[in-house]
Amino acid sequence: MTRAYFVTVALFVLAFSFAFASDPSPLQDFCVALKNSSDSAVFVNGKICKDPKLAKADDFYFGGLNIAGNTENIFGANFTPVTVDQIPGLNTLGISVARVDYAPNGQTPPHTHPRATEVIVVLEGTLYVGFITSNPDNRLFTKVLNKGDVFVNPIGLIHFAFNVGKTNAIAIAALSSQNPGLITIANTVFGSNPPINPDVLIKAFQLDRNVVEHLQKLF
Amino acid sequence: MTRAYFVTVALFVLAFSFAFASDPSPLQDFCVALKNSSDSAVFVNGKICKDPKLAKADDFYFGGLNIAGNTENIFGANFTPVTVDQIPGLNTLGISVARVDYAPNGQTPPHTHPRATEVIVVLEGTLYVGFITSNPDNRLFTKVLNKGDVFVNPIGLIHFAFNVGKTNAIAIAALSSQNPGLITIANTVFGSNPPINPDVLIKAFQLDRNVVEHLQKLF
Amino acid sequence: MTRAYFVTVALFVLAFSFAFASDPSPLQDFCVALKNSSDSAVFVNGKICKDPKLAKADDFYFGGLNIAGNTENIFGANFTPVTVDQIPGLNTLGISVARVDYAPNGQTPPHTHPRATEVIVVLEGTLYVGFITSNPDNRLFTKVLNKGDVFVNPIGLIHFAFNVGKTNAIAIAALSSQNPGLITIANTVFGSNPPINPDVLIKAFQLDRNVVEHLQKLF
Amino acid sequence: MTRAYFVTVALFVLAFSFAFASDPSPLQDFCVALKNSSDSAVFVNGKICKDPKLAKADDFYFGGLNIAGNTENIFGANFTPVTVDQIPGLNTLGISVARVDYAPNGQTPPHTHPRATEVIVVLEGTLYVGFITSNPDNRLFTKVLNKGDVFVNPIGLIHFAFNVGKTNAIAIAALSSQNPGLITIANTVFGSNPPINPDVLIKAFQLDRNVVEHLQKLF
Amino acid sequence: MTRAYFVTVALFVLAFSFAFASDPSPLQDFCVALKNSSDSAVFVNGKICKDPKLAKADDFYFGGLNIAGNTENIFGANFTPVTVDQIPGLNTLGISVARVDYAPNGQTPPHTHPRATEVIVVLEGTLYVGFITSNPDNRLFTKVLNKGDVFVNPIGLIHFAFNVGKTNAIAIAALSSQNPGLITIANTVFGSNPPINPDVLIKAFQLDRNVVEHLQKLF
Amino acid sequence: MTRAYFVTVALFVLAFSFAFASDPSPLQDFCVALKNSSDSAVFVNGKICKDPKLAKADDFYFGGLNIAGNTENIFGANFTPVTVDQIPGLNTLGISVARVDYAPNGQTPPHTHPRATEVIVVLEGTLYVGFITSNPDNRLFTKVLNKGDVFVNPIGLIHFAFNVGKTNAIAIAALSSQNPGLITIANTVFGSNPPINPDVLIKAFQLDRNVVEHLQKLF
Repeated sequence: MTRAYFVTVALFVLAFSFAFASDPSPLQDFCVALKNSSDSAVFVNGKICKDPKLAKADDFYFGGLNIAGNTENIFGANFTPVTVDQIPGLNTLGISVARVDYAPNGQTPPHTHPRATEVIVVLEGTLYVGFITSNPDNRLFTKVLNKGDVFVNPIGLIHFAFNVGKTNAIAIAALSSQNPGLITIANTVFGSNPPINPDVLIKAFQLDRNVVEHLQKLF
Repeated sequence: MTRAYFVTVALFVLAFSFAFASDPSPLQDFCVALKNSSDSAVFVNGKICKDPKLAKADDFYFGGLNIAGNTENIFGANFTPVTVDQIPGLNTLGISVARVDYAPNGQTPPHTHPRATEVIVVLEGTLYVGFITSNPDNRLFTKVLNKGDVFVNPIGLIHFAFNVGKTNAIAIAALSSQNPGLITIANTVFGSNPPINPDVLIKAFQLDRNVVEHLQKLF
Repeated sequence: MTRAYFVTVALFVLAFSFAFASDPSPLQDFCVALKNSSDSAVFVNGKICKDPKLAKADDFYFGGLNIAGNTENIFGANFTPVTVDQIPGLNTLGISVARVDYAPNGQTPPHTHPRATEVIVVLEGTLYVGFITSNPDNRLFTKVLNKGDVFVNPIGLIHFAFNVGKTNAIAIAALSSQNPGLITIANTVFGSNPPINPDVLIKAFQLDRNVVEHLQKLF
Repeated sequence: MTRAYFVTVALFVLAFSFAFASDPSPLQDFCVALKNSSDSAVFVNGKICKDPKLAKADDFYFGGLNIAGNTENIFGANFTPVTVDQIPGLNTLGISVARVDYAPNGQTPPHTHPRATEVIVVLEGTLYVGFITSNPDNRLFTKVLNKGDVFVNPIGLIHFAFNVGKTNAIAIAALSSQNPGLITIANTVFGSNPPINPDVLIKAFQLDRNVVEHLQKLF
Repeated sequence: MTRAYFVTVALFVLAFSFAFASDPSPLQDFCVALKNSSDSAVFVNGKICKDPKLAKADDFYFGGLNIAGNTENIFGANFTPVTVDQIPGLNTLGISVARVDYAPNGQTPPHTHPRATEVIVVLEGTLYVGFITSNPDNRLFTKVLNKGDVFVNPIGLIHFAFNVGKTNAIAIAALSSQNPGLITIANTVFGSNPPINPDVLIKAFQLDRNVVEHLQKLF
Repeated sequence: MTRAYFVTVALFVLAFSFAFASDPSPLQDFCVALKNSSDSAVFVNGKICKDPKLAKADDFYFGGLNIAGNTENIFGANFTPVTVDQIPGLNTLGISVARVDYAPNGQTPPHTHPRATEVIVVLEGTLYVGFITSNPDNRLFTKVLNKGDVFVNPIGLIHFAFNVGKTNAIAIAALSSQNPGLITIANTVFGSNPPINPDVLIKAFQLDRNVVEHLQKLF
């Protein structure tokens, strides 16, 4: 995971963080990630840690979640993650949070989190949210949420949120992993690097070749 | 865990819930807790579930976290948990959230969570927060938090929060367990049911017998 | 999870099973699932078990994986799962397998498994396979596999397989969960029950309303 | 965790080690901790290991648990831990043990273990032991133990042991983590480094300022 | 697991219990096993629990580990387990203990524990102990232990203990599972019920048919 | 685990891989093992990883499982493992596979896997397979498998497979760990390095001294 992992997603926005039930447990009080561990010579499951004697309160701190994200983008939304990349003290502790801003009609498009369940708390506005169960039922569970409402998106399931109110909406998300991961469906499938062979997508989505190629250029 | 588990704690307030890294992982999309499972004939690790075909969106929903809790109590604070007892859909998913309200000078007194790390997000006000590491160092890590600040209390460590501002404070907490548990130190040690033999506490806290007996009546 | 969970997916085909690293560990030699546990009065994380004294060798057995699945369907492929629904003795043991058949040009369309990593072994034919990493990189890793080749699709990531040979292809998949789950992207997003509000999909996939509505009818 | 972690606690005594249910599982036969890993340049969750080819029987050995600890201290007790710091071969294996000695009237004062359940076996003497459940019930479970008696203190709960016999007492403890951790309540709350703001403790324990300040000097 | 699981092993003796690193974590303060859960209508991973309101101190207690086991048997040793079958409060807590008695020349023959690491503490006597690593090295690690010595047998590896002193020996074992399991190699391979086809054992152990058939009668 | 871990076992053959339920979960999309990590200066639980930016499709690939192993050895069988040692991309993902070849009358002799459950799929031939439960019941579960049959060997239990057909047999195994481990009973007990004191084995297996010493030379 590069440092930039979530940081650059602000353009597309997305996922409410998630909290996964299965991060391995800590074996000491804390194991603060080395700030530049992604540039270090040693990689492990999670992050290597700094000398615990050098840990300080700021290693467990992040500021600025009161600041609205910029929603002037294609999805009209903005995601501000607070994972182990932002708070190194989260390493080994199995949880993270995030803030999501939505302009009117803004959305976090359908996505999954490979390593976390997500709990969202609506601070402002009105969101139409939902998740879909796996095959073969693919049941859709939806709810319209207002200020003070809480909703759960179980780990790994595709979910989304849409601002159906006339004002901006704000949500805080709790996620069950220090690094929940985010897979925005459309961007990942049509915007992978390099692109997937179009023949796969034409049959998978039952779309015309020119539509698929258009989408692959777009994302 | 009885349904009343956290519900009645509002008097004393407490802990920002926490999310522990080690809840067992789910073995299906979800396993919504039976509403009245605590009254059922069968108890398991966690909760028994309702028939998945009967699950509905409301099983993943909780409303009212926008409402301030009543802080007119001895600690000047109020804790509103949203765990598996409030959202049955959280069962098997390893995460929960909470809202904490603080009057000026209000506090969540020193406490631990036996099953969760906690991440707090300050929505309003100014909090002096801290946690203490285990023996033998017992290092205190503290920080003064303002609106938009985030702080981590690692699983199992004693921590607290004190409203040092002149206005009410509000925080949202994310916790790494569906049922993080809360152990308020003073209430637990001096207010257990039945009381601990005073001789234990006199020596443990190096207090006079009359002080210990006074505290045992108080809590 | 109903018994029909995977069984009916044969029409669309799909995923090579997966084996997830995080199923909870067993607490006894085995805990054979009750055959009709999905119809029982008690649901738990995983399955309730039969009396261990009644366990027999057939509880750990499944026959018929040598039989080719019917690939005469829209995707030209067929998925035969062998999970805890087929072998009740897999309960609590964290693993399952599957067979996948592909007609020429057949495919398992892009999908994820919320609870498992998948390892595929090609028995016959030639498959173009790949997976895509999460945001923001969305890197595509692909390989053309022939008889005797093995490939890994890490847990939760979107992946696919396409028969680029002129003959039928056969693969065996190992998955790291007793119940890995399967989320076929197109079917889930466009074919959920009930359908997602089209406005969400129009913006998410940047498609025309009539294309979205066409797809929602199709899947 | 520094090497000195538990070693210096002998003055205050403490916890019977504990065994926690959730240390991550081993991925090889063993992963013997580097003796001086706490001084190394690389820290991870748990300990980095020595080359497995260099492992020897002594890496799995500790001697001297037959020797009584010195109980001439304020609590009249002494704790001798045998964790991964004493036996490097315990790394990744999720268990440790300890010996506790008690002079008459000696005690291990109320404490928690953030990462372990503890099972104690009384070898000599008579101990009044107990643990307290979490909020809101704070139920006290107590028992007087004699030679050959065994008792369980569940992970994370506050517990204690008091020598109510007229002779020395000895106990062996098994704990469910390679590094269970120990949080002696009084020392941690009143003796943290640096001290907690007294205003927090005055309100939390409902004590006079001079009593709090006296305790903060004492511990 | 029947109640008799470990109880009847006294004849052969055996394993020092073990503590496994991977029992699933608890989701509440405790989940005391129903005493007669093995006779109940519902089986789960681990044990179903009694109503927590009915839990009492005796659920966390076992007495009599000071009593020597009867070593008048073929192996000259006796194993007294204290697992979840003896202490129902151990359910969900991932640890257990045991006492082992050895007459002079008595032994716990080579065995494995499928779900636990074992830590042994020698209380009396002199034991030659050892474990063997897995293929292909099969390295033997041995040590002669005296009073107060501690040794670790990593999870799943074959190990043994032999009383090489002239007096009785006593050991306490800690094991990392509530139900570690015990597989005495000779008894299991040659004494299974029903017996293994002798042709398998003749080739596997490179023994004459009459020796194999003799052993199959013996065990 | 040395690189040679499984590689050299071809002489004796052995275990069908296994899949263990409890490998710790991944904390990122993948963590590809450094090819020469066993020679590196840093060892951890599992393997240290390469820079994720340098990961490539070949890290998730292994070729050649279509090639029959050489069964001209004492057991008439051959085991070809595909674990994290063969596919570095399996690191942190909790699963592996293997191919096993059997000449007529060939066998994988009784063995255990300390870290994995195994699911076998028979591709060709006829195998008599079985596993034995732990003490005190030591129940034997057996089945004769033909092409397309699947069977489960639960983690840690002793199991075996014997080619009772007149032709070669081939099986694919899925195992629930990236490094399941393999303990061939006879080789480990009688062929350890250095040898176990014969007095232990004479009593454990109730064999004559000369038989034991013969076996120790043989293995």
